[in-house]
Amino acid sequence: MQVPKVDSPRELKALTSQQTEALIPVIREQIIQAVSHTGGHLASNLGMVELTVALHRVLDTPRDKIVFDVGHQCYAHKILTGRGPLMGSLRQFGGISGFPKREESPHDSYDTGHASTAISAALGLARARDLQGGQEHVVAVVGDGALTGGLCYEALNDAGSSKTRLLVILNDNQMSISPVTGALGAHLTFLRTSKGWLGAKKAVGDLLLKLPLGGKWLHRLLYRFKNHIRNIFVRDGFFQSLGFRYLGPIDGHDEPGLERALQRALRYREPVLLHVVTRKGKGYSPAEEDPSKAHGMPAFHPQDGSPKVKPVGRSFGAVAGQLLCMLAEEDPSLVAVTAAMTDSTGLGPFKQRYPNRLFDVGIAEGHAVTLAAGLAAGGLRPVVAIYDTFMQRAYDQVIVDVSLQNLPVCFLIDRAAIGGEDGPTHHGVFGTAMLRHIPGITLLAPRSADELQHMLRWALKQKGPVAIRYPRAEQVAQAMYPCQSFAPGHWEQLEQGQHMALVATGPMVGEAFKTRKALERQGVQAALYNAGSIKPLDTALLHRLSDNGIPYVVMEEQALQGGLGSAIAEYCVQHGLRGPVHLFALPDRFAPQGAHDAVLKSLGLEGEQMAEQIARLMEQSA
Amino acid sequence: MQVPKVDSPRELKALTSQQTEALIPVIREQIIQAVSHTGGHLASNLGMVELTVALHRVLDTPRDKIVFDVGHQCYAHKILTGRGPLMGSLRQFGGISGFPKREESPHDSYDTGHASTAISAALGLARARDLQGGQEHVVAVVGDGALTGGLCYEALNDAGSSKTRLLVILNDNQMSISPVTGALGAHLTFLRTSKGWLGAKKAVGDLLLKLPLGGKWLHRLLYRFKNHIRNIFVRDGFFQSLGFRYLGPIDGHDEPGLERALQRALRYREPVLLHVVTRKGKGYSPAEEDPSKAHGMPAFHPQDGSPKVKPVGRSFGAVAGQLLCMLAEEDPSLVAVTAAMTDSTGLGPFKQRYPNRLFDVGIAEGHAVTLAAGLAAGGLRPVVAIYDTFMQRAYDQVIVDVSLQNLPVCFLIDRAAIGGEDGPTHHGVFGTAMLRHIPGITLLAPRSADELQHMLRWALKQKGPVAIRYPRAEQVAQAMYPCQSFAPGHWEQLEQGQHMALVATGPMVGEAFKTRKALERQGVQAALYNAGSIKPLDTALLHRLSDNGIPYVVMEEQALQGGLGSAIAEYCVQHGLRGPVHLFALPDRFAPQGAHDAVLKSLGLEGEQMAEQIARLMEQSA
Repeated sequence: MQVPKVDSPRELKALTSQQTEALIPVIREQIIQAVSHTGGHLASNLGMVELTVALHRVLDTPRDKIVFDVGHQCYAHKILTGRGPLMGSLRQFGGISGFPKREESPHDSYDTGHASTAISAALGLARARDLQGGQEHVVAVVGDGALTGGLCYEALNDAGSSKTRLLVILNDNQMSISPVTGALGAHLTFLRTSKGWLGAKKAVGDLLLKLPLGGKWLHRLLYRFKNHIRNIFVRDGFFQSLGFRYLGPIDGHDEPGLERALQRALRYREPVLLHVVTRKGKGYSPAEEDPSKAHGMPAFHPQDGSPKVKPVGRSFGAVAGQLLCMLAEEDPSLVAVTAAMTDSTGLGPFKQRYPNRLFDVGIAEGHAVTLAAGLAAGGLRPVVAIYDTFMQRAYDQVIVDVSLQNLPVCFLIDRAAIGGEDGPTHHGVFGTAMLRHIPGITLLAPRSADELQHMLRWALKQKGPVAIRYPRAEQVAQAMYPCQSFAPGHWEQLEQGQHMALVATGPMVGEAFKTRKALERQGVQAALYNAGSIKPLDTALLHRLSDNGIPYVVMEEQALQGGLGSAIAEYCVQHGLRGPVHLFALPDRFAPQGAHDAVLKSLGLEGEQMAEQIARLMEQSA
Repeated sequence: MQVPKVDSPRELKALTSQQTEALIPVIREQIIQAVSHTGGHLASNLGMVELTVALHRVLDTPRDKIVFDVGHQCYAHKILTGRGPLMGSLRQFGGISGFPKREESPHDSYDTGHASTAISAALGLARARDLQGGQEHVVAVVGDGALTGGLCYEALNDAGSSKTRLLVILNDNQMSISPVTGALGAHLTFLRTSKGWLGAKKAVGDLLLKLPLGGKWLHRLLYRFKNHIRNIFVRDGFFQSLGFRYLGPIDGHDEPGLERALQRALRYREPVLLHVVTRKGKGYSPAEEDPSKAHGMPAFHPQDGSPKVKPVGRSFGAVAGQLLCMLAEEDPSLVAVTAAMTDSTGLGPFKQRYPNRLFDVGIAEGHAVTLAAGLAAGGLRPVVAIYDTFMQRAYDQVIVDVSLQNLPVCFLIDRAAIGGEDGPTHHGVFGTAMLRHIPGITLLAPRSADELQHMLRWALKQKGPVAIRYPRAEQVAQAMYPCQSFAPGHWEQLEQGQHMALVATGPMVGEAFKTRKALERQGVQAALYNAGSIKPLDTALLHRLSDNGIPYVVMEEQALQGGLGSAIAEYCVQHGLRGPVHLFALPDRFAPQGAHDAVLKSLGLEGEQMAEQIARLMEQSA
């Protein structure tokens, strides 16, 4: 069948049901093509096609509002709201975002990126509607993975008691990034598979089929009765105790069924939870078979899903995970905690080898950290592996639960750098500023996987908290210098130079090499220090640099405010030292999405750009 | 009856039931006496006496572990574990803490202070026990107020699926600081009041009474049957769906009944939730009648509960609340959000006048902020009023939901200073460091209620987020200078002086006056600037100070790392300016508890102390 081009929800609504059915594989193909080219979230988007189509056929955006939780499942929504032609630029520098963005389209009602925010945000939109006398529908679409986040519960509890008209769609694909753990996951499985309900449904369904077509009233009666049976058999206690009307479970790949369910759900003038069961990766076998791998993918060959480019440099997380496996053998008190990120933080092998010593708590970073504090107070030595921007969810717990009690919790903070194509919600660039002012914590940033190993061994011997922050993988340029040891408060000198000094940390050490070479070409010999220890600082070196009178700059891939440069500036004021002449760091605005190097360049933080700026500074001061 | 002196759980266990019964009012009296003298949490502690006694008669601490959520209900526990004689020093500088502290006693197994952490921490202790082959009991005591926090849900979800042996006691006193809102509150009320259960309980209870004493087996059978009836009538869906065995509700002031219930609950080798109903303020009529007022109290007259000292200086929160009431009349888009803190943040009058425009979400700061972002995205202008240390729970939401979308949310952040007697969990001293590096946010700190009003009026006209941080009340010394206006990036000059300059912010302006006077006595004339605008800085002034060559210091009641001084130091490095000669701020350790002035003095931040240090610095540089 010829499928008409659909560039807007209005055009979608004009389609016949047959045309709609035919459109679905076309959208799916568009998604596969786009993601194979740009990388992105595949499995979650493939699972959402029918639901997105149904939503746009029933709702009237931008008047009605859809809030996508996390937001990385909105590709079909982008295609259906006029952004199909832009899908080639998805997640690229200057291109469209992989998440909903209000600035991109009026059909995007709320920006997301971190999990579990949609119900809170949708409740805000719904209350704003009520106070302003609006009539629009507000719908939050939340995955079962995100539902493990306490923020969802806080929002359900609030919405359920206020009785605000609001539809929450639970997109139950039976996993977040890893399969969902948690008791609620079991409850959802119970709801999905409740035999009583399925049996009753089949019996009444069979009866409905056998009825003469004329008996419409009887048909309708029995149809309603079917729903009542369901309420008898499928007893959802969870959502009901939180004040929601529970509807479902329904098949998330039956588009006409979804339209009917949505229409019914939207008739209630109260909070409703519609439970939709989808399959991640639906319609694309490589993604269906390994949806965990197809969660966030780099560009790939669409025919088999194999990646186009192999990642280079050792993964920090993988190296840490391997070392932990080794150390755990000697030390039975070593345990690991993660928040729905076992594989992506490198803890896969640890889980395999010590399944009862790894606690994956779901998307629940706050709990992960307080749990670790409890484990440590109970005599164990927990390692908590979480991405940098997700640690923002556990800031209070790092202060009050871990640091105030001075408990020996080791944080392995991954993706602590510009996050690339995922954009500003995923740039791990505030972590230094977030952690540095917490009393008693040691804050480290290795330049190489070798240094990470030294740091981790050291950290696991300390009596208090240590946080080690690193990007996904080491840069080859940084790693080629061997690392023999680690000591807190000591910055290793990687290169000599008598004219000036570069103090670089973490992923910026690689750029500093480039800066140094570019300066060398201009006759400037720069010493290079690797500031692996952010807290404590190498104060002896700061005194030496001040005494020697050599100008120096600080280089970090972190927010300027509160970063390493800021720490050095503070120290120099307090001790009457001559401070650095410039701080290279992220300026006070949210960095854009794009390939890591493109983003760095846009901020003036690429190695040669920094060399140019240093040359200008030295001219001015000369 | 003569009540034996009880200084340890061992002595408590040796009491007869009659002696135990007689001990309870004695403990209650000790609590009232202590709190009337030192101030502290009264109502919650009075409600916990029977439960605490029962816990210590059944459990064997320190082998068994009790984790008190929030922790301000642990006074009876302190008295029963040998700290009765120290209760006169409760919450004083150098005295015992108002919260559990591991360093105080081996009977304190985990330090708390912020709500909703106990289940996570207890789960950690329980898992540590299991991995180490221990047999001890781990019990978390959680109030119904704290249960609105998402952290509790994350922990219940994790504990319920792992089936770890753990007892959670829900201390349901039907309110946190304000009466509990939220759907779960309604569910608890349903559980408490379920008529079917109460009726059945009464019928079986009556039957039990009528049985001949000889028929012990029948008695036991019926007793068990009573519990089964309960399970038929009281259908808890919530805790069950999270994998917990629900027991209760039981009377929290029937000590022998509590002992029996605890013994039964501890027999299960799985996660159990025991629902205990208590009355806040139990046994002391001023507290029973107004438990909200008797939550955290200053010292008072025990005979009637009236406060001993009236607070001085206008309350910032009250002034903000009054202004909001006025502005809300003109602007129908103005709404307020708070997290179980309506009265204590000054929003009481707003709630009275605009009940449908105030959203109290319970102890759920993350949700409060994302809800506000949703309200703002929906076209309203939300003001979020939360205490400074509790804002730590919403750090990610301020970044991702509010600032990244540049939504017009105004944060009124109360208690943003040394918190006094509540100690390190309540010192609002990290807020500047927490917020300053977030792009797009404006960060303000008024010195007086007048300045706050100017700031708030200004903030409500902005297109992006503004955070205004202030202590509980203004200092009279700071407020005596009239404040005519406010402009971001401008620091008002309060005093002239040609020898040096003091740049002070927030509550430190008052100390700076003292510093200035002390310097004057030594012949040093210091100019005084009020840095009300932390972000943006008054960069024009920084350039002038640098150009003039006048030495200056920065004074703030915030952590040095990442604070205002740090911001100034950063700016001076980046622009080649001569920087400040010293930063007065909190050192890199957790500040102790105690009266505000005593804590300040212990940190060397009292006005005259700073003057001495300035004199020393000027001598050195001369």
